[in-house]
Amino acid sequence: MNSRVYLDWNATAPLRPQARAALATHWNVAGNPSSIHEEGRAARSLVEAARDALARAVSADARNVIFTSGGTEANGLALTPGLFRKGGKPCERLVISAIEHASVLAGGRFLPEQMTIAPVDGDGIVDRDALRVLLHGKPAALVSMMLANNETGAIQPIGEIADIVHATGCLLHVDAVQAFGKIPFTLGELKADLLSLSAHKIGGPKGVGALVLTNDIEGVAATIRGGGQERGRRAGTENVAGIAAFGAAIEAALGGMPAESEAMVNLRARLESGLKRHAGAVIFSEAVPRLPNTTLFSVPGLSAETAVIAFDLEGIAVSSGSACSSGKVQPSHVLAAMGVAPGLIRGALRLSLGWQTQDADIDQCLEAWRKLSGVLGRGNETGLERF
Amino acid sequence: MNSRVYLDWNATAPLRPQARAALATHWNVAGNPSSIHEEGRAARSLVEAARDALARAVSADARNVIFTSGGTEANGLALTPGLFRKGGKPCERLVISAIEHASVLAGGRFLPEQMTIAPVDGDGIVDRDALRVLLHGKPAALVSMMLANNETGAIQPIGEIADIVHATGCLLHVDAVQAFGKIPFTLGELKADLLSLSAHKIGGPKGVGALVLTNDIEGVAATIRGGGQERGRRAGTENVAGIAAFGAAIEAALGGMPAESEAMVNLRARLESGLKRHAGAVIFSEAVPRLPNTTLFSVPGLSAETAVIAFDLEGIAVSSGSACSSGKVQPSHVLAAMGVAPGLIRGALRLSLGWQTQDADIDQCLEAWRKLSGVLGRGNETGLERF
Repeated sequence: MNSRVYLDWNATAPLRPQARAALATHWNVAGNPSSIHEEGRAARSLVEAARDALARAVSADARNVIFTSGGTEANGLALTPGLFRKGGKPCERLVISAIEHASVLAGGRFLPEQMTIAPVDGDGIVDRDALRVLLHGKPAALVSMMLANNETGAIQPIGEIADIVHATGCLLHVDAVQAFGKIPFTLGELKADLLSLSAHKIGGPKGVGALVLTNDIEGVAATIRGGGQERGRRAGTENVAGIAAFGAAIEAALGGMPAESEAMVNLRARLESGLKRHAGAVIFSEAVPRLPNTTLFSVPGLSAETAVIAFDLEGIAVSSGSACSSGKVQPSHVLAAMGVAPGLIRGALRLSLGWQTQDADIDQCLEAWRKLSGVLGRGNETGLERF
Repeated sequence: MNSRVYLDWNATAPLRPQARAALATHWNVAGNPSSIHEEGRAARSLVEAARDALARAVSADARNVIFTSGGTEANGLALTPGLFRKGGKPCERLVISAIEHASVLAGGRFLPEQMTIAPVDGDGIVDRDALRVLLHGKPAALVSMMLANNETGAIQPIGEIADIVHATGCLLHVDAVQAFGKIPFTLGELKADLLSLSAHKIGGPKGVGALVLTNDIEGVAATIRGGGQERGRRAGTENVAGIAAFGAAIEAALGGMPAESEAMVNLRARLESGLKRHAGAVIFSEAVPRLPNTTLFSVPGLSAETAVIAFDLEGIAVSSGSACSSGKVQPSHVLAAMGVAPGLIRGALRLSLGWQTQDADIDQCLEAWRKLSGVLGRGNETGLERF
């Protein structure tokens, strides 16, 4: 019997050994980082070391790193009406792309009537001409765009978007949760004003994330209020061991990135070549730069929900898209925004690789696909329903 | 040389071995609980087992347990304008006591002008007559009162408070973060409509908490929004291993509570008797029911900040009060509300015990106090400043 093959790294990655070691070393740190005794100072220094590691990783100032309970909280914290750059105008509205994560689609503390959605093209890339029109000559907006999409892996031209945003006196928040640790970037290279990150996508623990600001951003108001932690921008006793493990995961992920990315690109090329050999598989966003690890594909007539279960029975964990909606199967808003036909959206499957993915995993996945696609190949329009 | 003595368990407790074991067993669960494959289902079942453990612990329905990133977030989530009991009126205002935690003082999503503060007496117990006046014949309020105070340990007569609250058609939120695992209670015994809990106060990990609702409470609106996790009441990938460790800590804490409480009561009696032997120590809330582990005391002329450092140099971790304000030393709002003289407030020291506290720890603490109080005994009005 084959062992399990986990190809759902975009949903959540297993802990990196370095993060596990950090947790095991530090979970006995009893102190509260706000306490001034030795135990408190030990806890404080762990949090600050992780903050430094994160700041170094994206070339930010450590004092502008706000630890949160994850990417969703970081995105919600970023989307604050009234944000401004020193000397600039406060953001009165929110402009996001149509393919953002649910936590950005929710709009943070902007009201629905303050929000505008920018369209994307057939490859899932933000339409910059439309964005210009949405921003030009209007009240200052906070623009929130993801660096790489969690479903397709498509990488946005964030530098170009930033120029458009800044030329109109607006601010740019970049949700880099899915891109972090997979492609290199700094806050300066992205020209982002705010940046969201998450630990568990890079091999850190679930339940830890961060919002990073550039130096001249003002007006971030805490969503979780009470104590003065995180310079008054995020109350609550810090998840000390989790934050320390995030720091360890960051160093491990960025250190391993060049080699891991190259390996994943090669494995994915073989995977996609094999997928396309059967049942007329279409790979989304194939024509544009993508994360090295992500494949979103579909086959006409396939039911993704059934296919996920069929793959699971073959020992392979794949996703029918974003896992962030509590198991509810809804058509992908990302593919809908890209203008993909409903029949193809219904069959969209995401395979996402990680640093532990091996040749044998790809073999096992393609073997399963050969079997499963064969069912389709017999012209059964209801796809894999019999599994 | 003596080993360190940790007497700051109310700030944060070390991990219980059972919580550590749960973390070590489950941190490799790669799956996202929202994913439908085997790895996702394994993660889901860990979260649901912890939810069941928490529900059993306070006799609530598991579906009414909302996991959060801690007590502060749970309190903020609870304080939602518009909350109502099925068939009842929505809460238009917030009434809290003067001694609540900073996260309740912040008011959640109520505006400052919607908030009213109920006074406490000299022992730190809520003035029920004043509460009646604040609620009677006025628009429906959400009342938020802590079960036990984090600084003094004083236990509120929550049952009596609940009767007053419910007689006026209002709802009661109880912040039980500090009481959980130290005194027995259920949701029904407290007659609370909402209840906040935190993992790290009972030997679970930092960064995990919960809000618990009774069955007929409606209108809880997520503060962290996006995915549909926690029945749409708290978005973001669940802290799976942390939640599992919370569940393990709950079972260990409640199982150990009778014996641990008795041991702590006895150790504290010896501690307080020793403290009072020197320098005229006054113990706050001594005349009312208190948590078994908490001592807040002061000596005229003492500087608590200096004393914390002096104790620390003697190997003993104590607190000058709540640790939730990022190390900022501010006069205790709890003691101020109790009408304590500023000179005594300035010297207030909190010693809080835990399940690992031993006779030898009390000995070492009292030996340090004998030395330190001696400095005061020489009539030095500036207290321990020379340390």
